[in-house]
Amino acid sequence: MPKISDERKTERREQILEGARRCFAEHGYEGATVAKLEREIGLSRGAIFNYFPSKEDLFVELAVRDNARISEIWVNEGLDAVVREVVELDPAWLSVVLELFRRARTDPEFKRRVEAGHERLAAANRARLEEAQRAGEFRDDLSAKEIGTFVSLVLNGLAVMRAGGDELPSTELVLSLLRDAIGGARRSTPSRTPA
Amino acid sequence: MPKISDERKTERREQILEGARRCFAEHGYEGATVAKLEREIGLSRGAIFNYFPSKEDLFVELAVRDNARISEIWVNEGLDAVVREVVELDPAWLSVVLELFRRARTDPEFKRRVEAGHERLAAANRARLEEAQRAGEFRDDLSAKEIGTFVSLVLNGLAVMRAGGDELPSTELVLSLLRDAIGGARRSTPSRTPA
Repeated sequence: MPKISDERKTERREQILEGARRCFAEHGYEGATVAKLEREIGLSRGAIFNYFPSKEDLFVELAVRDNARISEIWVNEGLDAVVREVVELDPAWLSVVLELFRRARTDPEFKRRVEAGHERLAAANRARLEEAQRAGEFRDDLSAKEIGTFVSLVLNGLAVMRAGGDELPSTELVLSLLRDAIGGARRSTPSRTPA
Repeated sequence: MPKISDERKTERREQILEGARRCFAEHGYEGATVAKLEREIGLSRGAIFNYFPSKEDLFVELAVRDNARISEIWVNEGLDAVVREVVELDPAWLSVVLELFRRARTDPEFKRRVEAGHERLAAANRARLEEAQRAGEFRDDLSAKEIGTFVSLVLNGLAVMRAGGDELPSTELVLSLLRDAIGGARRSTPSRTPA
């Protein structure tokens, strides 16, 4: 059997993941049979499961990547960028994630896998929040954790409304109300400025 | 066959719906087989399907009731009450609702059924919002629709975090930040008061 270069392996991994995402999005998690995964990815089950031993592994890797990407956008580009990203997520893929919420709540090992790297991401998120508080971007009378969970709440709300096909509030409105709730500027009232 | 009184019919309908809710919550929508529904409800399939012709009809009735109850709490008791209600919803039942989001988005007839009475509820919601704006409870520089979709976004975010077993921000914090975003009081700056 010819040896496959590392570069080729990476390419093939990406091909498998992108095909699996399309297949899950189109048919749902349960509906994405091995035969359908083969067709969408364009590789045999032997080749696919050489990279990912099960359908669950494919889903987990896609979910972990999503979390990492959203977190990176938040940390590197800030609030506006992350809200704009979430309102553009694929509704079909989002509903696959929702389909597995029951499992995430009732199967701790599955939850742990989907949240891999969560501690590391949470630390980066908190560092970014504290920096933004010091810079006056966010109010400093709440903890970074309180601000972070509220932002997360709003992002989750956007994602679930998008998954359900509901009409979203405009991105401008969401950003403006988020700034009214957690922004730093309006907190700088004269009474709070040191004499 | 003995005739069943209307009162008895209503009781039996409630028995069926509450059993079906428990069964869906425990096993998921797909997992709630007819045999499991019979066991949880305590009636034969013949008796159950005499009231609700299909599993889908049972789910739709439960979802329509939820929407109506949440809307009533919002209209009659206000923002605090509705936030407190949503953070206490059963996570297991919420994840059944999420399981059917794909279907709600891709099957217009199903969506229409789940949203039965939506127009009527939306009108009552808007009337309540406009009244609260006039009373200074909510800011009046946004439309009632804009405020309503933002509240809905936050409630959806709470519901999805609860379904996933995530740690929720405290109810006090959510209410306080919501008031900062959409409350009327802080908008009454002297510059906006007519001379």
